[in-house]
Amino acid sequence: MKRLLCAALLLGLGACAPNLRATGDLGLVVERADGRLKLVESTHSTALASIDGLGDLSHASIVYSRDERFAFVFGRDGGLTKVDMLRAEIVGRVVQSGNSIGGAISQDGSLVAVANYTPGGVKVFDTGTLELVADIPAIGADGKASKVVGLEDAPGNVFAFSLYDAGEIWLLDMKDRAKPGLRKFHGIGKQPYDALVTEDGRYYMAGLFGEDGIAMLDLWNPDQGVRRILDHYGRGQDPLPVYKMPHLEGWAASGNLAFLPAIGRHEVLVVDMNTWREVGRVPVAGQPVFAMLQPGGRRLWVNFALPDNALVQVVDVPSLKVIKTLEPGLAILHMEFTPRGERVWMSARDSDRVTVWDTQSLEQVADMPAAKPSGIFFTARAHRMGL
Amino acid sequence: MKRLLCAALLLGLGACAPNLRATGDLGLVVERADGRLKLVESTHSTALASIDGLGDLSHASIVYSRDERFAFVFGRDGGLTKVDMLRAEIVGRVVQSGNSIGGAISQDGSLVAVANYTPGGVKVFDTGTLELVADIPAIGADGKASKVVGLEDAPGNVFAFSLYDAGEIWLLDMKDRAKPGLRKFHGIGKQPYDALVTEDGRYYMAGLFGEDGIAMLDLWNPDQGVRRILDHYGRGQDPLPVYKMPHLEGWAASGNLAFLPAIGRHEVLVVDMNTWREVGRVPVAGQPVFAMLQPGGRRLWVNFALPDNALVQVVDVPSLKVIKTLEPGLAILHMEFTPRGERVWMSARDSDRVTVWDTQSLEQVADMPAAKPSGIFFTARAHRMGL
Repeated sequence: MKRLLCAALLLGLGACAPNLRATGDLGLVVERADGRLKLVESTHSTALASIDGLGDLSHASIVYSRDERFAFVFGRDGGLTKVDMLRAEIVGRVVQSGNSIGGAISQDGSLVAVANYTPGGVKVFDTGTLELVADIPAIGADGKASKVVGLEDAPGNVFAFSLYDAGEIWLLDMKDRAKPGLRKFHGIGKQPYDALVTEDGRYYMAGLFGEDGIAMLDLWNPDQGVRRILDHYGRGQDPLPVYKMPHLEGWAASGNLAFLPAIGRHEVLVVDMNTWREVGRVPVAGQPVFAMLQPGGRRLWVNFALPDNALVQVVDVPSLKVIKTLEPGLAILHMEFTPRGERVWMSARDSDRVTVWDTQSLEQVADMPAAKPSGIFFTARAHRMGL
Repeated sequence: MKRLLCAALLLGLGACAPNLRATGDLGLVVERADGRLKLVESTHSTALASIDGLGDLSHASIVYSRDERFAFVFGRDGGLTKVDMLRAEIVGRVVQSGNSIGGAISQDGSLVAVANYTPGGVKVFDTGTLELVADIPAIGADGKASKVVGLEDAPGNVFAFSLYDAGEIWLLDMKDRAKPGLRKFHGIGKQPYDALVTEDGRYYMAGLFGEDGIAMLDLWNPDQGVRRILDHYGRGQDPLPVYKMPHLEGWAASGNLAFLPAIGRHEVLVVDMNTWREVGRVPVAGQPVFAMLQPGGRRLWVNFALPDNALVQVVDVPSLKVIKTLEPGLAILHMEFTPRGERVWMSARDSDRVTVWDTQSLEQVADMPAAKPSGIFFTARAHRMGL
């Protein structure tokens, strides 16, 4: 009877039969106010289940196990929660710090690392057991503890991250988990606030809040040290008020071009990745938060900080022009493309809805209720680097 | 009781309990001589089950449903077979032509298209039911039926393919399945033999066997027509004997560089994707068949035609030098990287084994028996374009 029940209760579906379910089209929507996740699937754009008890999910982010079954949820309260998506339940949780800001999963899927604000530093856990594998305090060259930001996975079971207060980039090599290797780069610039690893796994780039520019480390040639690029990126000599820090994770290349939300300005910067120089700016409706390239497409999608956060603009890449301004709801916090880019899901926090759009027709094709939704994360992220 | 049995028999495992199983780390190995597939998983590098009854699997290839549950297997005998990987069984099969050469799945996952040699043409099927949705005979401008090759999926539920005999490229737009759109490009060059769509979904490129060069169509600007690039690619004025046609599918970019197996020559061509010109050649041990970039890495892996098909060479991309020559077994027909590139699986047909290698240490880490293995396909392909 117990076993029948097990089979019947999968995903909370009613009939007493084995509810076989693949995981390639699953995703989770963060319902931040309620500490809850909504399990969704992107083939028919429906919600499957809710999962409670995740703690403080402000600014929460999620990575996935390499089989796309388990989610690792990084909460703002320092909670690292492991969720089994096939059973729609929490299977492990550790409160590993007082305040954390995201994390990453290693290339081989065996380790998950968390970046902490309080007390700072990085903790690395086994993805099977959630046992602590490494505890790396982030003491800068100035001898002080630092917040850690921009934690990303890189090839070879390496984690790259930045020390916000100390202005450093560290590489943590976990190939041999009994002997973590640590390499530090000092003086990389003031207040790195977010970072990314390019899709080919080669470059780690940290945006600087405290000065103009981006710190770039070539992971193929770390001996060359950290280089400064895009000297006109950042707040500059004439800083504007910034209503929300932009995210760098949407960075993706279309041919040679990469796109970057400007800080505080109503512009998206266009960067030539051959020279790492700015080659253009796209005027947009507000302060951009995410500027994300649609997979397999020629369009860039941009959302905004207050007071323009009810808008989403779609930019045609060849002409670098806005071709449509959408109003998908109030307070659009996040956008997530289906893996091959035919649809995009958007969370409208203040409308308490998630809406789904066809990326070719630019029409809404589905929507569902969600309580104050923020991040949306599809399992296809399991197969990609630097997310 | 029936339901308990259902739950117990999943993947052929013995215990009477629901064997929940995610699908993100699954794959299939083609055992060509026996018309059989081996279901494998890449987390622990093990075989899970065998699936019989697939017909003639010479030159077979596989695409996956967007939830990573179902495989669509294109057999040489014209068979299109749908396999449920969670039950390890065939759930549908149509013999749709006398001789086929691969296929593709649409961006939204609703359609699968097959390229046929005999009688030629393309047939499109519903992925849910395997019902025929469109039948497109490939009659060239010369009025004759042509073999179809290089069938690839492109953004917007478009399929791109080439007519080998007629020297044409066609775009089949299946956005509205009741009204397929067809656009034809004539005189693109002699004997297109294989093709690819670049990972950004922008370019369709067909290698020409009958003359020097590659025919390239910019899918963002189809009105500009087909352009010829790489005029020294191909058999040229001084053709060499060709023991096996190279495959183009491994094409992937590292920064601006793409890599292409030369036809008949012991070289890999290096192409600058800014100019679409050849900028170098890497001398290798034999006639290359696949030249594949390791995901998230800096290494290119090359296998070879007879008489060098027991070798695999690893090329360091920054220096363009061979750094190691491996001997993974006899008759290495295919290589497949795990999605984030930490391992590579290789089929050794004449050793009746599949071997698994760590891409960082370049050491073998696992192997398993397989009967005359050829293609290896992991489910992560579901999330990518042009495979």
